[in-house]
Amino acid sequence: MPVLVMKFGGTSVATLDRIKRAAKRVGVEVAKGYDVIVIVSAMSGKTNELVGWVNETSPLFDAREYDAVVSSGENVTAGLMSLTLQEMDVPARSWQGWQVPLKTTSAHASARIEEIPTDNINAKFAEGMRVAVVAGFQGISPEGRITTLGRGGSDTTAVAFAAAFGAERCDIYTDVDGVYTTDPRISSKARKLDKIAFEEMLELASLGAKVLQTRSVELAMRYKVKLRVLSSFEEQSDEAGTLVCDEEEIMESNVVAGVAYSRDEAKMTLLSVADRPGIAAAIFGPLSEAGVNVDMIVQNISEEGRTDMTFSCPVDQVKRAEKAMEDAQTSGEINYQQLVADTDVAKVSVVGIGMRSHAGVAAKMFDALSSEGINIKVITTSEIKISVLIDRKYMELAVQALHDAFELEKAA
Amino acid sequence: MPVLVMKFGGTSVATLDRIKRAAKRVGVEVAKGYDVIVIVSAMSGKTNELVGWVNETSPLFDAREYDAVVSSGENVTAGLMSLTLQEMDVPARSWQGWQVPLKTTSAHASARIEEIPTDNINAKFAEGMRVAVVAGFQGISPEGRITTLGRGGSDTTAVAFAAAFGAERCDIYTDVDGVYTTDPRISSKARKLDKIAFEEMLELASLGAKVLQTRSVELAMRYKVKLRVLSSFEEQSDEAGTLVCDEEEIMESNVVAGVAYSRDEAKMTLLSVADRPGIAAAIFGPLSEAGVNVDMIVQNISEEGRTDMTFSCPVDQVKRAEKAMEDAQTSGEINYQQLVADTDVAKVSVVGIGMRSHAGVAAKMFDALSSEGINIKVITTSEIKISVLIDRKYMELAVQALHDAFELEKAA
Repeated sequence: MPVLVMKFGGTSVATLDRIKRAAKRVGVEVAKGYDVIVIVSAMSGKTNELVGWVNETSPLFDAREYDAVVSSGENVTAGLMSLTLQEMDVPARSWQGWQVPLKTTSAHASARIEEIPTDNINAKFAEGMRVAVVAGFQGISPEGRITTLGRGGSDTTAVAFAAAFGAERCDIYTDVDGVYTTDPRISSKARKLDKIAFEEMLELASLGAKVLQTRSVELAMRYKVKLRVLSSFEEQSDEAGTLVCDEEEIMESNVVAGVAYSRDEAKMTLLSVADRPGIAAAIFGPLSEAGVNVDMIVQNISEEGRTDMTFSCPVDQVKRAEKAMEDAQTSGEINYQQLVADTDVAKVSVVGIGMRSHAGVAAKMFDALSSEGINIKVITTSEIKISVLIDRKYMELAVQALHDAFELEKAA
Repeated sequence: MPVLVMKFGGTSVATLDRIKRAAKRVGVEVAKGYDVIVIVSAMSGKTNELVGWVNETSPLFDAREYDAVVSSGENVTAGLMSLTLQEMDVPARSWQGWQVPLKTTSAHASARIEEIPTDNINAKFAEGMRVAVVAGFQGISPEGRITTLGRGGSDTTAVAFAAAFGAERCDIYTDVDGVYTTDPRISSKARKLDKIAFEEMLELASLGAKVLQTRSVELAMRYKVKLRVLSSFEEQSDEAGTLVCDEEEIMESNVVAGVAYSRDEAKMTLLSVADRPGIAAAIFGPLSEAGVNVDMIVQNISEEGRTDMTFSCPVDQVKRAEKAMEDAQTSGEINYQQLVADTDVAKVSVVGIGMRSHAGVAAKMFDALSSEGINIKVITTSEIKISVLIDRKYMELAVQALHDAFELEKAA
């Protein structure tokens, strides 16, 4: 029988009633003839509670014990979901990560999936079981210890299962009903997309859209897993939600698929850096070692052997970046006059695979921002996205202006 | 290094602070030179919450899923305890049942321990780990599924580990500071026993004393594991609590060790049963099949081919017993005039290995009850205990009278 993977996030299994509602959705797919693999998160709030206990017990915790503790929430939901399905006369059983076994690296708290053997679960499907309920977010290391995949890891679990079992589709049930052209809380004109290309979703996810974990989209793209994002709180049709798929499957699309934003950015500028070959490595090496996630980088034209170097990073990493730069100055690795931090900036991006074949997207974007009197501080571009740093107070205005300029409220 | 097993019940690990207090106790034993195996229960209340969810989801639940759900509480405590010990610089790691692996039968929700291989944990002790923290109450079936040992199973886990590792002692930390001659809430003269024999503890446990699970005492007796019951809420010396041990280790003891009671008993009498060979089997077979735990049985002298048969059972099984008897009457297996249920009775017992060599214990017991005007409804005896059924309203009075009559407030 064809296999379908269905993933339910924490809000979708937050109570016994919600688990029942989710189980009914599973029952509908079973009735259509699918063998279903259900991936469940912990009931919402549970993982945070467990993480809180670990942090309170041991601020610099042993990640192996962290994993043993925080993985327990998913085990509870998996058992309850299986029982709920059984009550509906749907043959089901639960699997914990080590029972599959979902094999991962030993990088505790952020392990990567290495292998998902299909024989155990397929043997049960062959015996007539219709639903395998798998605890998301967790696996087992080569040493036989429990690992977790990092926050949001249940999305990744779901896609990995879909790839391993050659599933027809991987449905991600969440508390929103799909992927929007932008955040509906910022623009009332935001429109749900019926389809979006993997590359676009990947950019949107890494640019701040919280619908899917970036790694899960990467994995889906690599293994060509059809991903569907949809709401567990609405009646569903086969066309509900947003399908994340190969761009070949999207006949018509807008040049720009969506507008993303990230509120908590900081712009850091090293003034009058002594320029020399290797200066970028001398700056960004120490930043990387200090755990600063540098995003955008701009280097001014060098004058008389000195230049200004600007980069952006999350606002809560500014202190760390300053420390790293001071240390590098002290040790003589770099020589600069001053480090200026602007912590009142936000990043706004437009994303779309149509940009590849359409000229003028950047010009249109800059025009739209200029018309609103919004000054652009830093620009970066890739093949399918353009991002700008602007003053944070203009963020909502910028998102709305760009949404209007690219007419995202209209379907292609 | 010698091995010590320490078990902490739910109230002893109810909060992070209590886990810390328990970990300090473990640290004291490590400092003495022991390699320690710590068995932990779930934080108090957690298992009840999980059981509640399972029952609400599926009243006639699949016990395999029940086990997968309810075992998760112990995993949390095991990880937190290990982290707490690490914070104290005590090398520790956690084990879940399947990681040991603690092998059990497939009797889910009431599995029995079959084997505890010691190689995994001993290898870590050899590497310098000093504490193995093991999630109690759980194991793994031959089919690779999670099993639980039934309520109170963490005591049994602890004793089984002590037997498997040849531990010097198994310390059960709980919320009382030892085994008493009777319930201190009923008799203010109740005295803590320094030592008690396995056989006596076994009788007291099965007669209603809630300090230790009956199975754990059985197991300790079979494998000669020295058990100590003590409080996790008081400063401890080496002589704290009560040692449960072989009777040879108890030099002097009272004839009677303690007085136990069970409040929720019912007395059932089948009036005028047609007596014939095999009539007991015809009555108690159907009761057993109906899940009625028959305790005491008395058969009157048969007159003219008919007799009265009296038995006791827990008061919440009366309905089930009545149904079983009516069905047996209908099917012609038995023939009786009437079934009378007296649901206002309690059982009071005196227990002591000294009874074996002392005559007159029963006479003294009946005397003491008679002096208080308490009528005895049913009597049963074994080698080391005498139990009587009496009206429930006299229960406390009977316990106090017997405690006085056998002078249990005085040590031997």
